[in-house]
Amino acid sequence: MRIGLAVIAVCCALAGVAPSEENKPLPLMPMPAHVAIGSPATRLVIDPSFSVAITGSTDPRIEHAAQRFLNNLRRRTGMLSLDMNIAKGEQASLIIHTDHASKEIPELGEDESYTLEVGAGGAKLNAPTTLGTLNGLQTFLQLVSNTPAGFAVPAISIQDAPRFPWRGLLIDSSRHFFPVEVIRRELDGMAAVKLNVFHWHLSDNQGFRVESRKLPKLQEMGSDGFYYTQEQLRELITYAADRGIRIVPEFDMPGHSTSWFVGYPDLASGPGPYEVERKWGVLDPAMDPTKDSTYKFLDTFIGEMAKLFPDHYFHIGGDEVNGKQWDSNPKIQEFKRAHNLQDNEELQAYFNQHVQKIVSKHGKIMLGWDEILRPELPKSIVIQSWRGQESLAQAAKQGYSGLLSAGYYLDLHWPAWRHYAVDPMSGVAATLSDEEKKRILGGEACMWAEYITPENIDSRIWPRAAVVAERLWSPSDVTDVSSMYERMAELSRQLDWLDLTHNSNYRPMLRRIAGTEHIAALRTIADVVEPVKDYQRGELPPGEATSLTPLNRLIDAVHPESEAARRFSALVDDFVGGKVKPGTEEEIRGILRSWRDQQLDIQQMASQSFLLPEVLPLSQDLSTLGAAGLQALDYLDHGQPAPEAWKAQQLEVLEQASKPRAQVTLMVVAPVQKLIEASANSAPR
Amino acid sequence: MRIGLAVIAVCCALAGVAPSEENKPLPLMPMPAHVAIGSPATRLVIDPSFSVAITGSTDPRIEHAAQRFLNNLRRRTGMLSLDMNIAKGEQASLIIHTDHASKEIPELGEDESYTLEVGAGGAKLNAPTTLGTLNGLQTFLQLVSNTPAGFAVPAISIQDAPRFPWRGLLIDSSRHFFPVEVIRRELDGMAAVKLNVFHWHLSDNQGFRVESRKLPKLQEMGSDGFYYTQEQLRELITYAADRGIRIVPEFDMPGHSTSWFVGYPDLASGPGPYEVERKWGVLDPAMDPTKDSTYKFLDTFIGEMAKLFPDHYFHIGGDEVNGKQWDSNPKIQEFKRAHNLQDNEELQAYFNQHVQKIVSKHGKIMLGWDEILRPELPKSIVIQSWRGQESLAQAAKQGYSGLLSAGYYLDLHWPAWRHYAVDPMSGVAATLSDEEKKRILGGEACMWAEYITPENIDSRIWPRAAVVAERLWSPSDVTDVSSMYERMAELSRQLDWLDLTHNSNYRPMLRRIAGTEHIAALRTIADVVEPVKDYQRGELPPGEATSLTPLNRLIDAVHPESEAARRFSALVDDFVGGKVKPGTEEEIRGILRSWRDQQLDIQQMASQSFLLPEVLPLSQDLSTLGAAGLQALDYLDHGQPAPEAWKAQQLEVLEQASKPRAQVTLMVVAPVQKLIEASANSAPR
Repeated sequence: MRIGLAVIAVCCALAGVAPSEENKPLPLMPMPAHVAIGSPATRLVIDPSFSVAITGSTDPRIEHAAQRFLNNLRRRTGMLSLDMNIAKGEQASLIIHTDHASKEIPELGEDESYTLEVGAGGAKLNAPTTLGTLNGLQTFLQLVSNTPAGFAVPAISIQDAPRFPWRGLLIDSSRHFFPVEVIRRELDGMAAVKLNVFHWHLSDNQGFRVESRKLPKLQEMGSDGFYYTQEQLRELITYAADRGIRIVPEFDMPGHSTSWFVGYPDLASGPGPYEVERKWGVLDPAMDPTKDSTYKFLDTFIGEMAKLFPDHYFHIGGDEVNGKQWDSNPKIQEFKRAHNLQDNEELQAYFNQHVQKIVSKHGKIMLGWDEILRPELPKSIVIQSWRGQESLAQAAKQGYSGLLSAGYYLDLHWPAWRHYAVDPMSGVAATLSDEEKKRILGGEACMWAEYITPENIDSRIWPRAAVVAERLWSPSDVTDVSSMYERMAELSRQLDWLDLTHNSNYRPMLRRIAGTEHIAALRTIADVVEPVKDYQRGELPPGEATSLTPLNRLIDAVHPESEAARRFSALVDDFVGGKVKPGTEEEIRGILRSWRDQQLDIQQMASQSFLLPEVLPLSQDLSTLGAAGLQALDYLDHGQPAPEAWKAQQLEVLEQASKPRAQVTLMVVAPVQKLIEASANSAPR
Repeated sequence: MRIGLAVIAVCCALAGVAPSEENKPLPLMPMPAHVAIGSPATRLVIDPSFSVAITGSTDPRIEHAAQRFLNNLRRRTGMLSLDMNIAKGEQASLIIHTDHASKEIPELGEDESYTLEVGAGGAKLNAPTTLGTLNGLQTFLQLVSNTPAGFAVPAISIQDAPRFPWRGLLIDSSRHFFPVEVIRRELDGMAAVKLNVFHWHLSDNQGFRVESRKLPKLQEMGSDGFYYTQEQLRELITYAADRGIRIVPEFDMPGHSTSWFVGYPDLASGPGPYEVERKWGVLDPAMDPTKDSTYKFLDTFIGEMAKLFPDHYFHIGGDEVNGKQWDSNPKIQEFKRAHNLQDNEELQAYFNQHVQKIVSKHGKIMLGWDEILRPELPKSIVIQSWRGQESLAQAAKQGYSGLLSAGYYLDLHWPAWRHYAVDPMSGVAATLSDEEKKRILGGEACMWAEYITPENIDSRIWPRAAVVAERLWSPSDVTDVSSMYERMAELSRQLDWLDLTHNSNYRPMLRRIAGTEHIAALRTIADVVEPVKDYQRGELPPGEATSLTPLNRLIDAVHPESEAARRFSALVDDFVGGKVKPGTEEEIRGILRSWRDQQLDIQQMASQSFLLPEVLPLSQDLSTLGAAGLQALDYLDHGQPAPEAWKAQQLEVLEQASKPRAQVTLMVVAPVQKLIEASANSAPR
């Protein structure tokens, strides 16, 4: 094989955008560290004769990865035939060379780099370790696109390595349970965007999700029957390791632990009996940090889990202890006085010190949320920052390693650009010394599970987690938001081929709400609303849900970020900014008409389904927005300024339409307002 | 629980349609034998407190079925919470009573009947056997719909039993291989529509798909590595039995058998070596019926398979032997003379007699295609008719049992109504005596696999197989086509919740063809075309494919039957027939405009993707059809007859547009022609 690479343009990550033939960014996410594009006309065509050769290390994970790579390539291209194989010799369309196998279970800080060279004659992927090869195969897959010559990868030269060694995704399997097949597909998605740590929140008030053989009442009484067996966990650990992903288990303590107490009430600081919690929030039950039996129990438990989970890190949670059970327990009060513990924070630090020794005894490094950061704890522990970015820098200054999760909470339904703007090294962190900076290991996107089920978890994680992955992998100057959105949209479609359901479940969920397959009108609304942000859902009518509440409403079906609203805003900005292309106004009018006209259908449908009435006010407002926008365009077209009275009336309507209803918000109020403002200021054209 | 059933309307299957509140047929397919609807306002609401109690037989399959039922109910309603359980006692929303367990492995002719009574207070499902209970649970699921009061089942009383005991689906896993997870979801689909026989075509020229431990070169050399292990098969047999489905294996012989000869060339009638076949069609290789070693081999093989597959029936294929290898083998010619065998049909009958003895020796009843019907064979064998319905009646007259598949070939891409119109008891069969009629056991829909992959197999089977299921289950007078289409559309959406991909893979496949996510224009075309029918695909450019040809073109993505075209035809029929509702003309105009306008987009996109150029002529023609239809409406609106010259010119255009291109056909030529004809005859309105 010859690599016929004629490099004509060098485009480093500096620009954040690697333009292809049509000036579109390369469909890569995360963007590699260094990319040089070859001649636009040169490409490696992927046809049924495509083959892969494996040279260098004989790590079996490389062959597994090559098989997965080919399967994915088959799905992406629809070439589901018997061809596209792993070649026996060293002649192949793609030659993989791996210097040596990485650790059997991936470890923090291993070399993950690779180089990829693609020319018309073939491609060469080189990596020092298995992990680099896994990453390079994902990059190759992302580059495959449909061209006039067939499916192909452009001529390209890539040298790539991650910015941070810890790039995680947390999934909370306690508040809602996610079967093994869901976890598997999330791991597939993680591998596609080079996330390398699956942080698994396995216990909380609402459920204890791991089989303990030594303390079986944990899952028998604390899980409602929904837990992972040790066999399943071992399979998933191998599944993840095969994809270069570490699994870090979290067992939250001493708070967030009601589910432990159902089977073992003596662990708690207040009297039992306990039941598996159905409500959300910060609750009172907490382990009793004053009893030896608590530490004996934890020694047994952590010992068992330390064997089950091979990763060097062990997460003890440690967040949100409200201290109420401690305050109302006289023995605990007495203990605090006797041990000169000033407040509950000192009591928790006392607990954490003991737990840290147990964790350490079983060969693991302890990890916990912000709250565990106390001078009493050794510098070996790792702090995960959820309350703010500053605490991460503080920890680094004090000598602690840390991870950033503040700003990466996917359950808050932030738009991708907002997560994208959060950099672990910005703010106070930018002022750290080089040595302190090294203590910032990376970060984790977090998927807390109050309002997700196996049906919509994917739409909450994907594609937004990919922009966190890019922030943690790519050079810090990869920050172009419009490139990010373009590449994220492309990635989102690519993830469909991994059977992630973030796109495919949208229509079925809308059909269920509508009670019919005729969902055009409902989709018109669903496309331009977003769930309320942050923690508003629990505060707005119909009020807080429990773990038993069905999650089958409009808010549960819609995407966290409205692509349609973002595109409409951009259209309007172009229009009022004078960057009008032929057809722009007609496109805007078409969209406004669809908003105006959906209302009739929704009203007719509303009596069919108990899930539709709450949509009616949104439908009404969207219709009004559509009509107002059309009227504004009419004024603009006639070159007459819109009357002030009309404008004032419309702005009142907008004020009304901008309020959340049914816990979702119409995201197109601002651009309609721009049209109205423009129409009021219009001069003859 | 009280069954508060106030029966106010008795609506037997006579009408074929059981109207609900809004005069829509009940969403049931197959339609039960007897349905009585209760008061429209009475319904059983399905909420998180819904529960199932199991009484009577303790067959574990009933509990499995109840768990699956609840899982499906959870998905259908989005109530994915911890509730909706199997009740401990006998108090529950749905009480299941099964008199006794059916056979561990389902058998032909077992009682499959059930009764289902639903009222506001609860539901009661009674069945003499496990099989009836399985069927009744499927009926209940189909009845769940979204109502103003929540998800609910209407008050109803059903007595149901099948018309035929053998209701099958054949899947050909040889020409293309389908992994276990595909087979599993097809079995789920079968259970949903009460099909009870999975006929598995496991060997053919293109691949031998079962692990034989006694003759391992069959799969080792004849499968390209794609076969089912015995462990997988045993699991699938249990999976099917759990759903009341028998698995009947087919090993085609003496023809359609090249894949056997790769490992065992001595079995063949011509000299080897052989390779796994890549081409389609009737090919020459055939087993040598003259050698004792052939029968010894088959004895070993059938003995092993008879143990592996528990069903009483064993299918030996027997179709399409062209005899060429026999004619060119002097020893075989000599053998025919010596045994006084007049022709190759007699030689094959000789072979079949021997095979029948082997099959019988191993405790099985032999089944084969039309061609095995010869007076030399005992009356115990079963004939499956693929060449025509008449042969089924002939077989019955001669004392043979039979199954109908002629008219049920899903790979021919017939519209549902055409399959629906085929009744095993019509034609010559109607003239049979009662005893002869009993020999017609039922039928099977057949999914041959030249042009299907795991990606589009579902869209070829579903939902059309459901109308064959209805033909074989429901009373013979359930024949209303418009009710069928309405219920089939509803069923199609219900099947989405079983993860069947007939709907969900449509857009991803179109996106792949387009090379972009902007597929509105391509979808406009894809929605109104159908693959060419019968065996035309191999005869039209770009010509016949092989088993290695990628199946990723427009023809592979589109549905076998265009719902959009059918609906447009109905709209036009209403319009020209004077049954015009407000908005009908505007709806027709909207559709015609979308056809007219897609062309610009398609032309702009065509240079991006190698899969689009073949779509251009279709795009052009559809655009012309749209423009012609709009012009016709203009003439009609102005009340002026369209000029003859214009009409003549348009009819030429239609003639052109009706021809298949890219192996698909535009299905909207006829309704546009109606508009043009109407416009030429129009008078002032």
